[in-house]
Amino acid sequence: MTQGKPVSIRDVARMAGVSTATVSRVINDNGRFSEATRERVERAIAESGYVANMAAKSLRSQRSYNIGMIVPDISNDFFSAIALHVERTLAASGYSVFVCNTGNSAERERAYFTTLTSKLVDGVLCISGLNELPENLLPDAIPIVCIDRYPASGRRIPRVSSDDVRASRLAVEHLIGQGCRRILYISSYTADYARQDRATGYREALASHGMAVRPVDTLFVTGTRPSMEEAEELVARRIAQGLDFDGIFASSDHTAVGALKALRAAGVDVPGQVRIVGYDDSIYTRLTTPQLSTIQRHTDQLAERGCEVLLQMLAGKTPPAVTIVPTELVVRESSSK
Amino acid sequence: MTQGKPVSIRDVARMAGVSTATVSRVINDNGRFSEATRERVERAIAESGYVANMAAKSLRSQRSYNIGMIVPDISNDFFSAIALHVERTLAASGYSVFVCNTGNSAERERAYFTTLTSKLVDGVLCISGLNELPENLLPDAIPIVCIDRYPASGRRIPRVSSDDVRASRLAVEHLIGQGCRRILYISSYTADYARQDRATGYREALASHGMAVRPVDTLFVTGTRPSMEEAEELVARRIAQGLDFDGIFASSDHTAVGALKALRAAGVDVPGQVRIVGYDDSIYTRLTTPQLSTIQRHTDQLAERGCEVLLQMLAGKTPPAVTIVPTELVVRESSSK
Repeated sequence: MTQGKPVSIRDVARMAGVSTATVSRVINDNGRFSEATRERVERAIAESGYVANMAAKSLRSQRSYNIGMIVPDISNDFFSAIALHVERTLAASGYSVFVCNTGNSAERERAYFTTLTSKLVDGVLCISGLNELPENLLPDAIPIVCIDRYPASGRRIPRVSSDDVRASRLAVEHLIGQGCRRILYISSYTADYARQDRATGYREALASHGMAVRPVDTLFVTGTRPSMEEAEELVARRIAQGLDFDGIFASSDHTAVGALKALRAAGVDVPGQVRIVGYDDSIYTRLTTPQLSTIQRHTDQLAERGCEVLLQMLAGKTPPAVTIVPTELVVRESSSK
Repeated sequence: MTQGKPVSIRDVARMAGVSTATVSRVINDNGRFSEATRERVERAIAESGYVANMAAKSLRSQRSYNIGMIVPDISNDFFSAIALHVERTLAASGYSVFVCNTGNSAERERAYFTTLTSKLVDGVLCISGLNELPENLLPDAIPIVCIDRYPASGRRIPRVSSDDVRASRLAVEHLIGQGCRRILYISSYTADYARQDRATGYREALASHGMAVRPVDTLFVTGTRPSMEEAEELVARRIAQGLDFDGIFASSDHTAVGALKALRAAGVDVPGQVRIVGYDDSIYTRLTTPQLSTIQRHTDQLAERGCEVLLQMLAGKTPPAVTIVPTELVVRESSSK
C-alpha cells in the first residue's frame, strides 16, 4: 500500500477477509480466534504496514474477557439459576463465563481458584463452600466477588447475599403466627456462615416469642447423600419417636420436600397437623401436594448484583463491601389453611 | 548442593516448601499455582541445579489439564446432572472442567467454542444447541466429543447419546398397550437431531399399530418461555377445543409436568382419562401427583462414556464414532393403574 492515507483497521480486516472486531481481537490477543485467523490477520498487518493504536492495545490486552464462576453443586437448581443469570448478564458485557463445580469439596474449590486466577480469567464470582478463602489463593490483581455465602478472608472481598437471619426469622414467625408451638429446624449442609445465619434467625424468632430453643429440635443434614433423602429419613425417625412437633422450618426446599414426604408416608396431615416452610423457592415448591411455602431469594438479582459489583471492580472502581438482596416469604399450602 | 547424588524433584520441593506435584506443575507450566509459588520453585530449581526430565516435560507441557464443557441450559436439571458427573469423572483424572452455558444461543455457542479452543483447554465436551458445527471453529488439534445431541460437522466428531428413536417408540407403545387410541406428542425446543429422533420414534410406534399420524397432534414448544409453562398453555388450549385424546408423550419431563398441570386444572383425570409419559426421569417426576412415567436416560453413564471417549482421544487413541447409552421406560402412576 503506497497511498498517503494511513492504513486503518478496516483495511486490515478487508485484506484478511475478517471483521474489524476479529482484527482487534488478534491484536489484543484475547483468545477468541483460530490460529488460521491469527496468521491471516498477522499477514495482512505485515503486508499493509498497519500500526495498531498501542495505547488502546495495552489498555485492552490485560483482559481475557473470561470470568470464572465457582459453584458448590451445579445440579442444585438454586446455584444453577444463579449461574444462568450470571452468564446472561456478563454475556451482555462481552464476557465468557466458565462455571466450575466443586462438588462441595474444599480441595477442588482451592484447585479451581488457582487454575482460574493463573492468567485464565479477569475475575471470579464465587459461591464458596469454604469457611475461609486462603490468602495465597487470591492474587491481588484479580477481583473476586462472593455470592450467597461469605467465607472469611484476610483480603476484603465484596459480597452479595440475602439477609438470611431476617428471612429465617420471618419464616419461623409466620409458623408461630399460624399457631405452631414446637418447630423443628432442618439445617442444610452448607458452609458455616449460611448455616449459622439461618439458625440464628430460627433461634431469634423462637426467643422473641418466649419459646424454648431445644438443641434436639435441630436436625442436621450431613451432605453425605442427596439432602432430600437424608431429610426424609431424619424426619421419619423423629416421627417414629412420637409426633411432638407441629412446625418445620427447613433451610432448603430440598430438605423441606424430604420432610413432606416423610410426613405424608406417616399419614400426618400437612398443614393440618404439621406446617412446613422451606427456603429458596425452587421449582419443586409448586410441584408437591400441598405446595410448599418458602423464602424467595431472587436468584436473578443475586446474580445481577454480583455481576455489577464484579464489573465495577474490573473498571477500577471500589464497590460496596456488602450488597443485600431482599427476600420474601411466599405462603403456599404447606403452612396455612 | 555439592554431593554426587543428582538433585531430585523431592529436593526441589523440600527447598521450596511445596509438594512435588506443585514443582511438577510449575515445571510443566500447567497453571495451577500462584506467581509467588512459581518464583519460589524457580529459585529452588536454580539454587539446587535440578535438571528436569525434559522428555517428560515436553510430553506434558502441551497440556493445560482443563476441559471445556458446553451446555445449552445449565438450569435444566438434565444437563446439570451430566455436567456434575463430567466434573466428578474428570476430576479423578486431574482435570479442571469449565462449564459454559450457551442459553440455546447459536452465537454464544460459537463464541465459547472459539474461546475454549484458543489454547485454554485440551478438549471440549459439547451438548450442542447447533444443528451444524462450523468447520472453522474446530481446531484439528483439539478433541471434541458430543454428548446427547449430534450436530452435523465436516469433521468426524465422536458422539455419546441415547437411542432416542427406540426410547420414544417404547414410550408410545407403552401408552398404546395401556389402551390409548389417540396420543399427542409434545415436541421440545431442542436442536433438530434430538427433536427428529423422538418424533420418529413417536411416528414409528403409531404406524406399527396402524394408528394415524396427525400433524395436529404434535404440539410444538418454541423455547421462548419456560417449557413447562408453554406446554401447560398448549395443552390447556387443546383441551378447550375438546378432549379428543387419551395419551400424551412429552419429549421432556418439563413439558410433561406442564401437560399434567393443564389436565388437572381442567379436571381431567390422569391416568383415568389421559395417560402421560415424559422423558429424562428428572427429579420432578417423583414430586407430582400422580408421579410421572418417563424415560430414564442415565445421565451418569452419558457423562462417564463421554469422558472416556475424550480421555481416549487425549491419549492419542481412536474412539468409537458412536456410543449408545441404554434407556429404560420407568412406569409410574401417570400412565398405568
